[in-house]
Amino acid sequence: MTTEVPEVSGGRRRPGRPPGRRPGAADTRGEILAAARRVFAEKGFDKATIRGIAREAGVDPALVHHYFDSKEGMFVAAMRLPMDPSSALPLILSGPREEVGERLVRFILTMTADPAAREPLLGLVRTAMVNEQAVGMVREFFTTAVLGRVAETLDVPPLRMEAAFAQLFGVVMTRYILRLEPMASADVEEIVALLGPTVQRYLGG
Amino acid sequence: MTTEVPEVSGGRRRPGRPPGRRPGAADTRGEILAAARRVFAEKGFDKATIRGIAREAGVDPALVHHYFDSKEGMFVAAMRLPMDPSSALPLILSGPREEVGERLVRFILTMTADPAAREPLLGLVRTAMVNEQAVGMVREFFTTAVLGRVAETLDVPPLRMEAAFAQLFGVVMTRYILRLEPMASADVEEIVALLGPTVQRYLGG
Repeated sequence: MTTEVPEVSGGRRRPGRPPGRRPGAADTRGEILAAARRVFAEKGFDKATIRGIAREAGVDPALVHHYFDSKEGMFVAAMRLPMDPSSALPLILSGPREEVGERLVRFILTMTADPAAREPLLGLVRTAMVNEQAVGMVREFFTTAVLGRVAETLDVPPLRMEAAFAQLFGVVMTRYILRLEPMASADVEEIVALLGPTVQRYLGG
Repeated sequence: MTTEVPEVSGGRRRPGRPPGRRPGAADTRGEILAAARRVFAEKGFDKATIRGIAREAGVDPALVHHYFDSKEGMFVAAMRLPMDPSSALPLILSGPREEVGERLVRFILTMTADPAAREPLLGLVRTAMVNEQAVGMVREFFTTAVLGRVAETLDVPPLRMEAAFAQLFGVVMTRYILRLEPMASADVEEIVALLGPTVQRYLGG
């Protein structure tokens, strides 16, 4: 979202750029993100590097680090994802182990209830469905940044982690893409009561 | 797949049509299916009728009935789906109720293990992901011809049925579209052991 800034002093400053910044600075972050999208699509998540993205953007790697803490953070911003798993997951995974299934189901359903959070995620999935480069990128990001981290934190075998992922992914598809009723209109807590024990059985240990 | 038939007697017979049939007959079924695809896409599964498809194809409804037993059978053929749920489901749903979860998981994984069966299904899902007409058609077909029938036969509330569907749909996506490992290479029986109890809990009653 850009806000209109009235043009007050001459024609050098482009609309939308606040006064006082050095020329070009307002677009640098956007240019890095555009370069990141190209590099992630071409190399996948695992092989992309901050150095390579800096080179693609024509900037110093230190400048990339100035804008983004990590490669994950850059992926999240580049794909406009609703949250960075490295900050969201510790919150979900802490707390009583016997409620982790319920917490995960509630988190996924609450996050995807907001169209502004849901649409970029669904967009990424839609692209991955029809594009081999995108599917590789999505697979590596989910495996490395989400599933691998959950499996490691909870000490759960990867296949059980992926069974839980399949249940959660399937319910988001059923609710928001296929929009099967009554799933599409069901109350979050009703779904949590139904799916929580499933995810708990896979991840509970 | 068409096979080349050598042209032996004059120019009237088009290549690919076996000798001895009345002119046009070889294409009638294909023309009805093409008309069916247009009508299903436009009206959805529920509102499409055999009469309407016959009109679109410019043939008598009796001829449509000659080729296809039911609207479902026509949808299955038009979308090149691997099986007609009206014949497959009774087999899966009969047998011990306490094993229905396991049977359903095994059936889905065995069917989708064959690329010739899987690809048309995935193609339909891919189209539905990006096309509103297709998603309506797929939603109605799944609801009316698959989920509604299972829910009725097993006397299971629709939301539980859709939770089971989400698990199965999610696992097919994880295994064959996202191709997450180890799910993508896991043995069918290993997945059955993991997911069977989940589907059983939703549908077992």
